[in-house]
Amino acid sequence: MVTKNQIKLVVSLQQKKYRSQHGLFVVEGAKTVNEILEAGLKPYKLFVDEPNKAENFNGVEVVSKSELKQMSSLSNPNGVLGVFYIPNVKKTENTDWLVALDAVRDPGNLGTIIRLCDWFGIKHLICSLDTVDCYNPKVLQATMGSIGRVNVVYMDLLDYLTKTSLPVFGTFMDGDAVYQVKMPKTGIMVMGNEANGISNEITDIVSQKITIPQFGPETTESLNVATATAILLNEVRRS
Amino acid sequence: MVTKNQIKLVVSLQQKKYRSQHGLFVVEGAKTVNEILEAGLKPYKLFVDEPNKAENFNGVEVVSKSELKQMSSLSNPNGVLGVFYIPNVKKTENTDWLVALDAVRDPGNLGTIIRLCDWFGIKHLICSLDTVDCYNPKVLQATMGSIGRVNVVYMDLLDYLTKTSLPVFGTFMDGDAVYQVKMPKTGIMVMGNEANGISNEITDIVSQKITIPQFGPETTESLNVATATAILLNEVRRS
Repeated sequence: MVTKNQIKLVVSLQQKKYRSQHGLFVVEGAKTVNEILEAGLKPYKLFVDEPNKAENFNGVEVVSKSELKQMSSLSNPNGVLGVFYIPNVKKTENTDWLVALDAVRDPGNLGTIIRLCDWFGIKHLICSLDTVDCYNPKVLQATMGSIGRVNVVYMDLLDYLTKTSLPVFGTFMDGDAVYQVKMPKTGIMVMGNEANGISNEITDIVSQKITIPQFGPETTESLNVATATAILLNEVRRS
Repeated sequence: MVTKNQIKLVVSLQQKKYRSQHGLFVVEGAKTVNEILEAGLKPYKLFVDEPNKAENFNGVEVVSKSELKQMSSLSNPNGVLGVFYIPNVKKTENTDWLVALDAVRDPGNLGTIIRLCDWFGIKHLICSLDTVDCYNPKVLQATMGSIGRVNVVYMDLLDYLTKTSLPVFGTFMDGDAVYQVKMPKTGIMVMGNEANGISNEITDIVSQKITIPQFGPETTESLNVATATAILLNEVRRS
């Protein structure tokens, strides 16, 4: 039995405000719920809409299809919904590269970047306060279990970058070709907003401007922020 | 005045079958229509739903909001719709690297890959016959004008790769680390299906298996095909 208050709680978690207030977030779909469990995140409640789906999960609650539909944010709910505790933020370390995002707004881009950090062993991802929330359902869909392995920290990015002792790298159209730049052992790679790039205030703090060279005809569109992050993390690791 | 038959034609172009039959495709939104025009593709008809939007386009037809809505595939049409001729496919050349896709199904991935080819100056993109159609509206949204600058060719990929004289590269979990592989001046980079990777038949033809090393903890998810393409094209060009 799921109570009306529980349904109300789950629905409220579609909004960032209530996710922060309750310290909880929602994941839908057997595959993603499994990935998040495997990544070691602690479930608060797991719901399935058929008894046979319950076998795969400990402590799961079987609810009716209509109850699950009420809790779901999907037009076609897929029968498995997990509510998880938002993990505690860990202290960042200066012993390796970090990635910092300046106002990345697209959930798919943030999700892809978290997954890339996971692949390339980047433990800490610093997000400016106006970057999209990493517990947004569309972000979670793109990150899969990576959200449990990368420490995502929201903070005043300008303040953080002003105080850090690490070299700050940023991507610009007029930077040095990344192939010619010697990558240090540690640093911060700043990635900018989809439409406007890195903000002026943060540009002033960047100690090394780099660019991914363009080989095709001059096009108006720059690389997407997620594909640029893929290339730059590969450059950091290969060096 | 737009006739009923014209509306019917435009709506039919949402399906690949009719796009092929008429040799036409549809693009929506001022920005994307402009990008496609700038890329040199030939318009068949351009429609806007307000006279003031007509200033920006030659030979445009002003229709009513309701007529534009009937032609649009969007729930909120944005007032500019272009019908373009599908460009003739050009003969592929063996003088540079080519990219080949084996059953890439996600429109966003194909769109991102076309844009990456454009950025890295890859002129020819070979797609297996079961790869998503590049004139699918969701692909066009992700490619922007790049579709006019990259020659996308659909063909029997197995047959093509069997006959080519170029070295065939493919990404596998058990390949050689890409940083250790000497990249030749020309070659074909094969990228596989989102869920299954490169098919067994095509694996047999691959002359060099490569891998993008993983630096993080062992995760179940591999890199997304579009981000992997970004990294590999960067590797091809940097060498």
